[in-house]
Amino acid sequence: MGNTFGHLFRITTWGESHGGGVGVVIDGCPPRIELSEADIQPDLDRRRPGQSSIVTPRKESDTVRILSGTFEGRTLGTPISMIVANEDARPEAYSEMATKFRPSHADYTYQAKFGFRNWQGGGRTSARETIGRVAAGAVARKVLRQFHGTEIVACVQRVQHIAAHVDPETLRVTDVEKNIVRCPDPAVANRMIKLIERIRKAGDTVGGIVLGVARGVPPGWGEPVFDRLEADLAKSMLSLPASKGFDFGSGFDGVTMKGSEHNDPFRARQGRVYTTTNRSGGIQGGISNGQTIYFRVAFKPVATIMLEQDTIDLEHRNTTLKGRGRHDPCVLPRAVVMVEAMTALVLLDHALRHKAQCG
Amino acid sequence: MGNTFGHLFRITTWGESHGGGVGVVIDGCPPRIELSEADIQPDLDRRRPGQSSIVTPRKESDTVRILSGTFEGRTLGTPISMIVANEDARPEAYSEMATKFRPSHADYTYQAKFGFRNWQGGGRTSARETIGRVAAGAVARKVLRQFHGTEIVACVQRVQHIAAHVDPETLRVTDVEKNIVRCPDPAVANRMIKLIERIRKAGDTVGGIVLGVARGVPPGWGEPVFDRLEADLAKSMLSLPASKGFDFGSGFDGVTMKGSEHNDPFRARQGRVYTTTNRSGGIQGGISNGQTIYFRVAFKPVATIMLEQDTIDLEHRNTTLKGRGRHDPCVLPRAVVMVEAMTALVLLDHALRHKAQCG
Amino acid sequence: MGNTFGHLFRITTWGESHGGGVGVVIDGCPPRIELSEADIQPDLDRRRPGQSSIVTPRKESDTVRILSGTFEGRTLGTPISMIVANEDARPEAYSEMATKFRPSHADYTYQAKFGFRNWQGGGRTSARETIGRVAAGAVARKVLRQFHGTEIVACVQRVQHIAAHVDPETLRVTDVEKNIVRCPDPAVANRMIKLIERIRKAGDTVGGIVLGVARGVPPGWGEPVFDRLEADLAKSMLSLPASKGFDFGSGFDGVTMKGSEHNDPFRARQGRVYTTTNRSGGIQGGISNGQTIYFRVAFKPVATIMLEQDTIDLEHRNTTLKGRGRHDPCVLPRAVVMVEAMTALVLLDHALRHKAQCG
Amino acid sequence: MGNTFGHLFRITTWGESHGGGVGVVIDGCPPRIELSEADIQPDLDRRRPGQSSIVTPRKESDTVRILSGTFEGRTLGTPISMIVANEDARPEAYSEMATKFRPSHADYTYQAKFGFRNWQGGGRTSARETIGRVAAGAVARKVLRQFHGTEIVACVQRVQHIAAHVDPETLRVTDVEKNIVRCPDPAVANRMIKLIERIRKAGDTVGGIVLGVARGVPPGWGEPVFDRLEADLAKSMLSLPASKGFDFGSGFDGVTMKGSEHNDPFRARQGRVYTTTNRSGGIQGGISNGQTIYFRVAFKPVATIMLEQDTIDLEHRNTTLKGRGRHDPCVLPRAVVMVEAMTALVLLDHALRHKAQCG
Repeated sequence: MGNTFGHLFRITTWGESHGGGVGVVIDGCPPRIELSEADIQPDLDRRRPGQSSIVTPRKESDTVRILSGTFEGRTLGTPISMIVANEDARPEAYSEMATKFRPSHADYTYQAKFGFRNWQGGGRTSARETIGRVAAGAVARKVLRQFHGTEIVACVQRVQHIAAHVDPETLRVTDVEKNIVRCPDPAVANRMIKLIERIRKAGDTVGGIVLGVARGVPPGWGEPVFDRLEADLAKSMLSLPASKGFDFGSGFDGVTMKGSEHNDPFRARQGRVYTTTNRSGGIQGGISNGQTIYFRVAFKPVATIMLEQDTIDLEHRNTTLKGRGRHDPCVLPRAVVMVEAMTALVLLDHALRHKAQCG
Repeated sequence: MGNTFGHLFRITTWGESHGGGVGVVIDGCPPRIELSEADIQPDLDRRRPGQSSIVTPRKESDTVRILSGTFEGRTLGTPISMIVANEDARPEAYSEMATKFRPSHADYTYQAKFGFRNWQGGGRTSARETIGRVAAGAVARKVLRQFHGTEIVACVQRVQHIAAHVDPETLRVTDVEKNIVRCPDPAVANRMIKLIERIRKAGDTVGGIVLGVARGVPPGWGEPVFDRLEADLAKSMLSLPASKGFDFGSGFDGVTMKGSEHNDPFRARQGRVYTTTNRSGGIQGGISNGQTIYFRVAFKPVATIMLEQDTIDLEHRNTTLKGRGRHDPCVLPRAVVMVEAMTALVLLDHALRHKAQCG
Repeated sequence: MGNTFGHLFRITTWGESHGGGVGVVIDGCPPRIELSEADIQPDLDRRRPGQSSIVTPRKESDTVRILSGTFEGRTLGTPISMIVANEDARPEAYSEMATKFRPSHADYTYQAKFGFRNWQGGGRTSARETIGRVAAGAVARKVLRQFHGTEIVACVQRVQHIAAHVDPETLRVTDVEKNIVRCPDPAVANRMIKLIERIRKAGDTVGGIVLGVARGVPPGWGEPVFDRLEADLAKSMLSLPASKGFDFGSGFDGVTMKGSEHNDPFRARQGRVYTTTNRSGGIQGGISNGQTIYFRVAFKPVATIMLEQDTIDLEHRNTTLKGRGRHDPCVLPRAVVMVEAMTALVLLDHALRHKAQCG
Repeated sequence: MGNTFGHLFRITTWGESHGGGVGVVIDGCPPRIELSEADIQPDLDRRRPGQSSIVTPRKESDTVRILSGTFEGRTLGTPISMIVANEDARPEAYSEMATKFRPSHADYTYQAKFGFRNWQGGGRTSARETIGRVAAGAVARKVLRQFHGTEIVACVQRVQHIAAHVDPETLRVTDVEKNIVRCPDPAVANRMIKLIERIRKAGDTVGGIVLGVARGVPPGWGEPVFDRLEADLAKSMLSLPASKGFDFGSGFDGVTMKGSEHNDPFRARQGRVYTTTNRSGGIQGGISNGQTIYFRVAFKPVATIMLEQDTIDLEHRNTTLKGRGRHDPCVLPRAVVMVEAMTALVLLDHALRHKAQCG
């Protein structure tokens, strides 16, 4: 259960890191949208391992195939099935995991829940699962852009203690893509890259914060009271591997302000409504207000490290475990792409819901 | 849309702050649970306005009636409908809101979405909506305690700059209920109360952080990959009025640690598994690991203030607005009860889902 | 579970026949629709017991109250909660049912499922539960008429061996409402009425067939592949108490035809598409084709009879049971209203779904 | 939308008749069930075209591959993705359908709904879509048998005017599989086969009735009030291509009986409850009562015939169309397998729902 996301633009992902592949089925895509693999592959390339010296070196081309739902290069309105083969499967690298639980991984909890697990490469908990989300997110993004002019972009705002100042109003994909860590401030990016490389060599990992931004969202998206826009964004972000927190607009920092400081005054100029500040992060009462939506997602340091750690085995005996081979020193550069994808999925779903009831 | 929460223990809330009342329908409650209004009223009393000098003085008894779903004092397994009448309706206090949008409220976004709104007291966006959640949460809580021994408690951890150190392992409801601000540290609580009273007199508001805790959750609750336990908790918390952020375990603070510092080593003692630290906050890979679940929810200062603010009117002309009458200087003491309710709803839903597939 | 129906226009009903009342919450109603109790009461009056000599004489005014979701006489887009009080509760009439299972009733199965049941008047399985559906259906019907000009009408086509010929193209509510059995052919209606009165006096019951019709449904409603229009109609009809079957268009009779006889040829006249026959019943491939939708629903004779029957008690001992007091000799005249309501709920839900994806 | 079925055992099918293939994703399968392609292929072989002289000769091996959700031959509890390639694609045979609508097909309605369609071989409306259902149904069937001893079997009860008497209590798969028309009465089967062969040669088609049976369903499955067992069965059956009607137990024939004749008396023998008749078809008040569940599904004659018919083209001009090449004279022998699959999917979903709330 729980492998489906969305109410009207609904995706179902499947696949383990070692097995026949990973994929996604999209249900509810509007018909007659031009769509081919060329719309999807770029985001998968941004997500894939081995793209730089600061991410996991697993070798995967992550080439996507669309198996259904399109005809003559356009969407049919029927389910879009997409698949990516697993290529760099190395079950032998994981043989020790068959009997030992990696600390802060999902090994123990999957075993506890299902009484059984695929211990090869993390199985269903592998970051490979996000391939389906990124592929579906690329479709959602295209529809949003085409129908509403909505623009979605995310970046690494912080790695451990190194933070950049990023303005959600001016953040652009081109600035984000200028460096391998995906931080739009080149000087800060350099420091982040050096830190990650040092951490990688030490066999350790670091976490940080991704900033997500959506511009061009019209007022009115979001459903009272449980399916508020920020609630669905929060859920989508906390469903990403290694994520630990979410806030939007002023977020956790807003708790230090008084209401008189925090409120965003409305103003109108030539009939166009805006707020002079944007502590609301573009969302009020669960519904978009037309201002820029922005939020932060905290990611912990990846659990797989190359150092010896205390743990237990399947029989609940104390033991130790030391990672071997390759590891992902920092999930953040790739998490940027996942955050963008989930943002697109949430926004398009709400765009369709809004149209259904109020359109 | 969006007024239903949960997959198996499913609640639907209804009602505006001014109208026939507010209520909730619970579907999926296990049968044969002893249940009467006496199980629910205490949490509603903890939630209701007018309970102390630091919350909104709106006068409501918030007396709940169970209209269906029980027979001879036990649940039938059929829908439980609960209703609370609106008593202290004062539409005249809101007449100015008929034509002006309160800054950082949902007035503008509701108008934009629906082209129409109940401007009396916030309508559907009123905190009165949470009455249904708290009533349903009391039922969920009772079932969780009875079936699993699960204990849920929340408290105010921070008001503006005043923060308490709270240990999730030892936090008890009795300590929380000892003062009106619901902070277990009496000295800190006193400072918080003084701050809120000062803020109230100034016609202003403050925000802060609520800490939520669940103990006695067995390993195995939570569904990969979208309905992770933390994802559903995040959604539930971000669906509360005035909430701005959520993190669990190490949360946003965890981003400063290295993986080798952050990972929670497993140990076993006499067959019982535990972790020597709990930065995972009791959840790994989206599934409970048997350790204490804890998380933080950030609440902004309430938007309604008694000071003059810039805003616009229905015709999008610039104007000003000054709140009149009563206001809620700090939502936190009552938010504690809402956080507990949503936690119970999420946990029971996942308990049932786990039983269905893996039980 | 299972007390919610619909994906976008979603209703949740609650209530037992003896208890605080019955009701419904509608989520997803479009905003700004004029709505008051006066739109709903007429259908409840057509549904209610005691309206004629051939239905159950239970005395209920079934007066509806709208508790939320409207403001100044128009819908807000928020949940519409409606409630009807129970008035004629006579638990003493059912005391024997506390320990004996009525044959072909839900007494035994509810006991088996929940281990507990409200034996007063059928509890949740009472036809009173359909009050919520009929109230919600009245809202759906109004929206359909206003937005799409869709007209929904049903009638009694058959009672036991007495059948009328009814043309779906010309069936009108006014003809249906001319007599108490709701059959548009006055001569046949008279015979039906006499039969039902005779059956009632004998303490027995009869079943029959309701014909449902929807005109003015544009092409395109219905979702491949599981949520076909006929699939959702079938589900909605089989969810009505005492229903035993559903077919649409040529239905069960169509199995005697060859494809060359059964196919509906398309023709166009002045750009308007039609079929020269309508064995498809207005639905092809799960999607409306713009022709009249019509279907049949079979209802069994009501299980409650005034005659002695073999049965068992709670301890699974053989015994007998004889109904006492009042009974409903024929559910059909009131089922007509329920069939119309469910048709409206299905059609509006699909209208909104179609708009969301393809609008 | 609408390509997902089930609440807890949830399947999503995808694929057009001409394209990359067809498939299904199962979410919610219990873990640790032994499962391989060998459990699924037999039902696909029973469903596939070309298996006999009385079904469509399209040449497809319909070989299934499990891509995820199993490990070392057992289910993981994660999504099970299954895929079947399309082999015998002959788009050229359909070129005329690019501009002409086949009567009583879904060509016109898909065009009306989506403004676009895959005209090659029926696209999404092709019976190939049911491959995913049959594959998922085979899994559900295995789980039901293993967990509950439930046995599901269906057969052809009638082809046009030729009907067999079939007793649901004694119907066995081995009897059904003894002949190519899947009717357990050999003499009647012979007449059916001859009729279908004659019809095929005439380029025409015939319909009929499939009887579905489930034995070994314990009392208690089914959810009041909308998700009654018969309601979900009805929906599942009416979602099958070419189906026109559904009834259960006494069904449409029950309308001729009086309540005193129709009611099923309860009896108990050595603590075991049974009914002396079974007009309820094993379901009372929407919940299984432990007796044999049986129901009928009407299938129309397949719309594709080899004879010239009146129709219109894309520009809504009157024209004619004559099928060419191969056609399926009678869907019934293969529909038997689809009916079994849908029955299994509905029952397992309700088994899990029952366990969640009442287990």
